[in-house]
Amino acid sequence: MLHLASGTDPAWADRAAAAADTVLLDHAHCEKKAASTALSLVFRYPEVPGLAPALSAIAREELEHFERVLALLARRGLPFRRLPPSPYAARLAAAVRTFEPARLLDTLLCCALIEARSCERMLLLSRRLEDPDLRALYGGLLESEARHHAAYADLARGTGLFGEEEVRERLEALALHEAAVLRDLPEEPRMHNR
Amino acid sequence: MLHLASGTDPAWADRAAAAADTVLLDHAHCEKKAASTALSLVFRYPEVPGLAPALSAIAREELEHFERVLALLARRGLPFRRLPPSPYAARLAAAVRTFEPARLLDTLLCCALIEARSCERMLLLSRRLEDPDLRALYGGLLESEARHHAAYADLARGTGLFGEEEVRERLEALALHEAAVLRDLPEEPRMHNR
Repeated sequence: MLHLASGTDPAWADRAAAAADTVLLDHAHCEKKAASTALSLVFRYPEVPGLAPALSAIAREELEHFERVLALLARRGLPFRRLPPSPYAARLAAAVRTFEPARLLDTLLCCALIEARSCERMLLLSRRLEDPDLRALYGGLLESEARHHAAYADLARGTGLFGEEEVRERLEALALHEAAVLRDLPEEPRMHNR
Repeated sequence: MLHLASGTDPAWADRAAAAADTVLLDHAHCEKKAASTALSLVFRYPEVPGLAPALSAIAREELEHFERVLALLARRGLPFRRLPPSPYAARLAAAVRTFEPARLLDTLLCCALIEARSCERMLLLSRRLEDPDLRALYGGLLESEARHHAAYADLARGTGLFGEEEVRERLEALALHEAAVLRDLPEEPRMHNR
């Protein structure tokens, strides 16, 4: 259902659990970045049918998650602060083709894959972490991530610019790329590192 | 209450009413830009106390307004499309000082003034327009704009970086600048033109 080409190594969850505060801070930045990416697509493609209202609604939901994570950070006495981003998103985006409308298709499908990977990992976190607040947070966000994964793939189909087969093939190719990116990332306690 | 240094010429509302569709499209872009500006400040100032959750909540609300305007455009059979931005925001921002923390103070207060001007003009539109949907839209958004105006000024005070007197004086100076910017803008049917 999530179209991922690889499963996360269970050892990742052990590393993440040992650095839950850093993963939580990283997660806050991921939600902020997800909102910003959705909004940037509204700026870039105002004319593409159906895109603007759907992306705006996704951005709003990401911001609501961001605020939820900020509140949890505050409750744990952790100030929100800068964190150098994981190379994951930039390396994933390296596969985005630079000409339109292929660029739009690839960008939407990369967003779909990021949401899918987040969903997969939040499930692992919700099972592996011991802190009840963190378990509840990740367990509660799962469903949105899966929904956003489907929403991005549906948006690509809904534009009318790409055939069903083209979307499916490109999603498979980008999923293989995503799995390769993940395999080469450093072992650091982040939502999207190895 | 809105700290504006000038009142809008009532003739503006006549021009806007004569081009209500263009003003509505411009308004959609204004809401999108307002969300994007609030979010960009979260990226720029993650460490400033209290800023991130408040700005995220403002961005969410601007996006919700954006979607409301998009729905109204769709109901009127008007596609959402690109529109060259009014020079208003860029000219207003020309007064923002380039060193910190003055840059933060000036940016927050410029946001406060944009919200104030929007509020003043939406009141004019809600009274001047004849279409009941548009009257209801503008009348309904007034309160949020006034609240965002106050929120931005309060955020400047809440950082602890600026004295009460400094915020008041700078808001007055920027309000004079805003009035001068507006006076020199072309007469075009836009939310923030002359």
